[in-house]
Amino acid sequence: MPDSITDSAQPVTTGPIPGSCKVYVADDRHGGLRVPFREVPLTGGEPPVRLPDPSGPYTDPAAAINLEAGLDRLRAGWIAARGDVADDPAPFNAPLAPADIPAFPAPPRPLAGVAGTAPTQRAYARAGIVTPEMTYAAIRENLGRAETGDDAITPAYVRDEIAAGRALLPANINHPEAEPMVIGRNFLVKINANLGTSPLASSVGDEVDKMVWAIRWGSDTVMDLSTGRGIHPVREWVLRNAPVPVGTVPLYEALDRAGGDPADLTWEIFRDTLIDQCRQGVDYFTIHAGVRLAHVPLTVDRTTGIVSRGGSIMARWCLAHHAENFLYERFDEICAILRRYDAAVSLGDGLRPGSVADANDAAQFAELDTLGELTRHAWERDVQVMVEGPGHVPLDKVVANMRRQEKACDEAPFYTLGPLTTDVAPGYDHITGAVGAAVIGSHGCAMLCYVTPKEHLGLPDRDDVKQGVIAYRIAAHAADLAKGHPAARAHDDAMAKARFEFRWADQFNLALDPETARAYHDATLPHDAHKTAHFCSMCGPKYCAMAISHDVKDAAEKDAGMREMARRFREGGGALYPEAGAEAP
Amino acid sequence: MPDSITDSAQPVTTGPIPGSCKVYVADDRHGGLRVPFREVPLTGGEPPVRLPDPSGPYTDPAAAINLEAGLDRLRAGWIAARGDVADDPAPFNAPLAPADIPAFPAPPRPLAGVAGTAPTQRAYARAGIVTPEMTYAAIRENLGRAETGDDAITPAYVRDEIAAGRALLPANINHPEAEPMVIGRNFLVKINANLGTSPLASSVGDEVDKMVWAIRWGSDTVMDLSTGRGIHPVREWVLRNAPVPVGTVPLYEALDRAGGDPADLTWEIFRDTLIDQCRQGVDYFTIHAGVRLAHVPLTVDRTTGIVSRGGSIMARWCLAHHAENFLYERFDEICAILRRYDAAVSLGDGLRPGSVADANDAAQFAELDTLGELTRHAWERDVQVMVEGPGHVPLDKVVANMRRQEKACDEAPFYTLGPLTTDVAPGYDHITGAVGAAVIGSHGCAMLCYVTPKEHLGLPDRDDVKQGVIAYRIAAHAADLAKGHPAARAHDDAMAKARFEFRWADQFNLALDPETARAYHDATLPHDAHKTAHFCSMCGPKYCAMAISHDVKDAAEKDAGMREMARRFREGGGALYPEAGAEAP
Repeated sequence: MPDSITDSAQPVTTGPIPGSCKVYVADDRHGGLRVPFREVPLTGGEPPVRLPDPSGPYTDPAAAINLEAGLDRLRAGWIAARGDVADDPAPFNAPLAPADIPAFPAPPRPLAGVAGTAPTQRAYARAGIVTPEMTYAAIRENLGRAETGDDAITPAYVRDEIAAGRALLPANINHPEAEPMVIGRNFLVKINANLGTSPLASSVGDEVDKMVWAIRWGSDTVMDLSTGRGIHPVREWVLRNAPVPVGTVPLYEALDRAGGDPADLTWEIFRDTLIDQCRQGVDYFTIHAGVRLAHVPLTVDRTTGIVSRGGSIMARWCLAHHAENFLYERFDEICAILRRYDAAVSLGDGLRPGSVADANDAAQFAELDTLGELTRHAWERDVQVMVEGPGHVPLDKVVANMRRQEKACDEAPFYTLGPLTTDVAPGYDHITGAVGAAVIGSHGCAMLCYVTPKEHLGLPDRDDVKQGVIAYRIAAHAADLAKGHPAARAHDDAMAKARFEFRWADQFNLALDPETARAYHDATLPHDAHKTAHFCSMCGPKYCAMAISHDVKDAAEKDAGMREMARRFREGGGALYPEAGAEAP
Repeated sequence: MPDSITDSAQPVTTGPIPGSCKVYVADDRHGGLRVPFREVPLTGGEPPVRLPDPSGPYTDPAAAINLEAGLDRLRAGWIAARGDVADDPAPFNAPLAPADIPAFPAPPRPLAGVAGTAPTQRAYARAGIVTPEMTYAAIRENLGRAETGDDAITPAYVRDEIAAGRALLPANINHPEAEPMVIGRNFLVKINANLGTSPLASSVGDEVDKMVWAIRWGSDTVMDLSTGRGIHPVREWVLRNAPVPVGTVPLYEALDRAGGDPADLTWEIFRDTLIDQCRQGVDYFTIHAGVRLAHVPLTVDRTTGIVSRGGSIMARWCLAHHAENFLYERFDEICAILRRYDAAVSLGDGLRPGSVADANDAAQFAELDTLGELTRHAWERDVQVMVEGPGHVPLDKVVANMRRQEKACDEAPFYTLGPLTTDVAPGYDHITGAVGAAVIGSHGCAMLCYVTPKEHLGLPDRDDVKQGVIAYRIAAHAADLAKGHPAARAHDDAMAKARFEFRWADQFNLALDPETARAYHDATLPHDAHKTAHFCSMCGPKYCAMAISHDVKDAAEKDAGMREMARRFREGGGALYPEAGAEAP
C-alpha cells in the first residue's frame, strides 16, 4: 500500500486463498461478461468446486492492484449505454479534510440520473428489462453452473424478484467498480462486515486494508461506519477500491458536520451529506426514518434504552425539538435523491433491542410498522429497499422477528445485526450472533450483518474482522443449506467425500479458512506423509472410525446379500428381519 | 501438580475466576448440605449474581488441592447410610499398566450393591425417596434461590423427573467425589467436554489438567475417551480428582485389551472391562448396543459411512462374525452390571451421520428405534438412561431429530454431539456445532457434547478445550433462555443493566470468560479510568448510543407527558397520534 494513505505496516493482502484459484465464467450476453469465482481444484479424480467469491481482483494473481488508481470501472459502459445519466458537476458540500488525511488522487466525476428518469435496477426490472447487472448476479447465484434444470437462477428470475421488491441489487451509478450481486430471501444469504475509523482509533490505510481483508474471507458487502476525522476522504479510498457494494450511515457524517450535538442537526445538513455520499458512490444508506417522536416514550422503561447510534441521535433530536423526526417528514425528498443515483435505502432499526430483556417490545415493533410504510413509499418511487432488524433476541423470539418483518414490509429483504441470542458472552459475540443469524437466515433473512469478538468491548482489529466474517459465513451457509438453495450443498458434499477418502489437502482447501484448517492439522501431524494418512491425531490409526468404516464397506460389498438386506429392511418398514419378527434383547 | 503424574509444565489451575467468588448455599436437609456456586459481586448497589458452577473445589481458595489424595468423598456418607452396598473386594481385571504411567497412590476400595438391591437414583425415585443427591441437584438448578414461588425446582420435582425417566442423576456409588447434578429436558441444559489421551499424544498429567480446565469454564460432565496407553490408571487419576460425573466408552478399552482388531472382541473381554470401570466409579457409559447387524447394510451407500468409533468397531465385529451385536444380545447382562453400581447407560448412536449428506437417513433412524427399545429395557431394570444423538445435521433437520428421539425413546434425556450444521468449516466446528446445539437445546435436548476448533483435524489442546466449552456454554445458555428456565434470565439482565450503566468491571466479571472480555477492552482502553467511562473505543464518546440514550431518558422523565404518550400509543393499537389519524410521510 502506498505510504501516502497508510500508517500501517500491513499492506493489503493479495493473491488467491491457498489451495484456491480465481476463475472467471465467461458469458456472451450483454456484449460479454466475466464473472469471478473461487475455485478449489481437487485430487482423486474429483471435479473442482466453485464457491462464491466477493473478493474482487485482489485474489487474482493476474490483476495489477494500485490503490491510488482504484479498481477498474466494470459497470461504466453498461451505465453509460442506458443513456439515462449525465455528469453532475456541482462541487461537493463536504468540509475540507484534515491536512494529514490524504485525498484520493483522481476521483471520478460524479454522474446523476437525468431529469425524469429513474436509473435504478428497480425501475428497469419493473419495465421488464434484464440489465447486465442482473445477469451477472444470476450467474453468481448459480455458482457458474449452466442455466439448465428447474433449479437454475435465471436473469429473468433476478429481475422479477427485484421488481417484486423481494430483492435488491445495490448498484450506485457512481460505484461502477462494484461487481453486481443480489440480496433477497430467494438467493444465497449474504453477509456484511462493518468497518470504519473511530474517533479513538484507526486510519485510512487500516480501513482499506480491513475492507480487502473482509471481502477476502467472504464478506459480500461492507459498511463504512467511520466516525472519526476525514470521513469523506476515507470513504473515497474505500469506494474506489471496493469490488463489493458499500453502505454507510450518513447521519454519522451529518452529525460531525453539525458539530457533534444531535440537537444541532438540520435537514439541510443531512441532505447535503446524503447528496455528497450518493455522488461518491455509496450503494446503500441506513436511514433512521422510523424513529418517530411518538415511539421515543416507549423506550423509557427499557433495560438498555436505545442502542443504535442513529436511533439515539434521532431520538435526541426529536425530544430536543419536540418535533417529528425530519428523516420521516422528508422521506419523499430522500427518495428523490436516492433515485437519481440508484442508491438503495436500508431502513434503520433505530429502536432495536440492546438486550434479551428488550427483545420484541413495543418500541421495536412500532418502528417496524413504520418501516413497512416507508418501504412501500420508497418502492413507489423506484428506490430499492431493505429493512434492518435486531439486535439482541433470545432464540425463542428470533423467528417471530422474521415473520413480523415479512408481513409489515411486504417481504422486502430483511437485513439483521446479530441477532445475539444471549447477553452474557462478551468476547464471543461472533458466536452468540452466529447462532441467531443462522436461524433467522434459514427462515428467510436476506443479509446478516456480522458481529466480531470485540462487540461491546472495542473497535475490531484485522483478526477480529476475520473471526466475525468466518462466523457469519458459517451462519449464512448453514442457512443456505437449510433453505435448500440449489448451489449450496455441493460444497458440503465435496468436503464430506474428501473426509471419507482421507484427502486431507482437499479438506483444507475446501475449508472456509484453509490456512487455519491446515495449521491445526500441522499442530500434531506436520509431515507431508500425514496429509494422506488414513487417520488423524484425534483417534490415531487403530481407532479411526472412517478407516474401519472402509473395511465395513469393503466387506459389505463383497457380500452380495448386503444391499439386498438393506432393501428388505427399508421395505419392511424398518423392522429387523421382518420375516422372523423383531427379536427382543 | 506432583511430578509423578505430569510431564506438563502446566499445573492444574486453581483459584476463582477473576471477579467471581466461590460461595456455598447451606441447607439443613439430609443432615446438612453445602452447595457451590460461582457468585459475581456487583457495584452500583446491585445484588450479586449467582451462576452455575461445576468447577468443584479447584475454584475455592480455601480448599487444599492434592491430586495424589484426590477430592473429598462428599457422597460417601449418604451412600453408606442407605445400607444397600457393600465392599466389592475382587481384584481388577485390567492388565498391568505400562511402567512409565504412575498409579494413583491409594485407590479407594470399590463398593457394589448387595444382592437383591438396586442402589440407583432411579430405583430410589420410583420408591418415592428424595435422596440427598436429588436435593443437592435441585438447589443447583435454582441457583440457590429459596424454593418459593411457582417456578422453583424442588427436590420432589427432581425425583419425579428421574422416576419418569425424563431425567437422570449420574452418580456411581464408586465416584462419591462427584457433586450431584441432574440432566433432563426440564432442567438447565448441560454440556460435556471430551478429554483423553490418544495413542499419538498427551499424558496423564495433561488429561487431569484438561479436566480441571474444562470444568473451570463450565463443563458439567467430562468424558474420558482415552485410547492410548494406560487407559485404566489415567481414568483413576481423572475420577479421583473429578467433582463432575465422568463418562467413558468402555469399548475403547475393551478393544485395547483384545489387541486392537475389532474381530477379536468378545463379550467376556467387554464385560470384564465394564465391571472394572464400574468399580472405578465411571458415572455413565456410552454403549453402542443399537448398531444391529441388519443396520449395517444401510450405511454402505452413505457419503461418509460410519463415523462413530464405537459404531464402526461394532459394525466391523458384526460383519466379521456375521452375527448380531453382542452388546445388543447381552443388554440384559449389561443392565445387571450397571444396576449394581448406579452407572447410567448413554445409548450410543453408532450410526450417527458424519456429513450433511447422511443426516436423518435410514441407518440413523433404524438405530434410534432400537435405542428406544433399549431405553425401556434399561428402565425396567432401574438403570438410568440417556440417549446419544448426532452429529452432522443441517438446520432444517435438527428439530426433527429431537421430536423423533422423544417419541422413539419416551422422552429419555437426549445427549447430542454437535450437531454440526455445515461440513465446510474445519477449524471452526465449535461454531458450526454451537448453532445446532443451541437450536436442539432450545427444543428439549438435555445435554450438549462440545466440539472444539480442532474437530476433524487433531487432538484438542488446552486452549481448544476452553474454546469448545465456552461455545457450548453459549449454546446451552441460549437454549435455557429460549426454554424459559426460571433461573436463566437473571444473568442476562444483570449484564444488560451493567452495560446501560457503564459498569465495565461488572460486565467483565459477569462474562462467561471474564479474562477475555477484559483483555479485549484493554486492547484499546487499558487505563483504569476507562473502566468507568461512558463510551468505548467502538464509537467513542460522541457517538455512544447508550450515552445519548441516557440523555433521552432524562429528557423524557422530565417531561411528565412522556409516559402518558407511551400509554396512549400502546392503547391506541400502535397507531401514532390515534386522535389525529396516522400521518403519511
